[in-house]
Amino acid sequence: MENCIFCKITTNEIPAHKVYEDEFTLAFLDIQPSHPGHTLVIPKEHFENIYVTPAETYARMSLTAQKIAVTLKQSLECDGINLIMNNDEGAGQVIFHSHIHVIPRYKDDGFTHFPQGEYKQGEAEDVLEKIKNYKN
Amino acid sequence: MENCIFCKITTNEIPAHKVYEDEFTLAFLDIQPSHPGHTLVIPKEHFENIYVTPAETYARMSLTAQKIAVTLKQSLECDGINLIMNNDEGAGQVIFHSHIHVIPRYKDDGFTHFPQGEYKQGEAEDVLEKIKNYKN
Repeated sequence: MENCIFCKITTNEIPAHKVYEDEFTLAFLDIQPSHPGHTLVIPKEHFENIYVTPAETYARMSLTAQKIAVTLKQSLECDGINLIMNNDEGAGQVIFHSHIHVIPRYKDDGFTHFPQGEYKQGEAEDVLEKIKNYKN
Repeated sequence: MENCIFCKITTNEIPAHKVYEDEFTLAFLDIQPSHPGHTLVIPKEHFENIYVTPAETYARMSLTAQKIAVTLKQSLECDGINLIMNNDEGAGQVIFHSHIHVIPRYKDDGFTHFPQGEYKQGEAEDVLEKIKNYKN
């Protein structure tokens, strides 16, 4: 897609440190890494986010992300790997070309995860009903 | 696996609010949700993390997570969806049965993402070499 920075990486109009490439997916270093080796996995074809990415394409992205996770864990000898996908601005998406972050982690890095809450009486049942009603 | 809480949810020994189920995967509400509707997607078979989950199983988990992402976005009318997978204690994994978090997000929720850095001169090339050397 015109003016999409990730599409331009795919076509080599913009350079990137490529970690892995196959017919359908590309993995390259994030230029603003949470830790060195932080990699982004994208489909070569342009889709904005997970909602509109065809299932087959999303499966391919996921399997590439899995390969990268295993590779980073072993090659960087890190203490763990997070896979993160942000969809929509409200969830932190900045580039609107579907991508999965694969992030090496270290025990003492001090990164914080999202807060955890708990359900009030009946609240879980209510939200479950809302979700299930949509599906029917 | 014995003493695995997620295996016990699969076999109904421990109750859960199930969102979706098929032959290979199960999705249920996290009991400590970041927001109501926060769902966990697991394979029914026990694998500890992404590194040891067979590719076919990981693809199935990912496709179930995609379905849940679309369903939560529409049914809860949230502002975005994060998909997060923590592998190893060093990356925040608490239950050692492979799982993907699907988390509805709201614009004003104030959740913070991991910090972003930048590469010093030559650092990206060095880490890329380390990653690529492992693969060869």
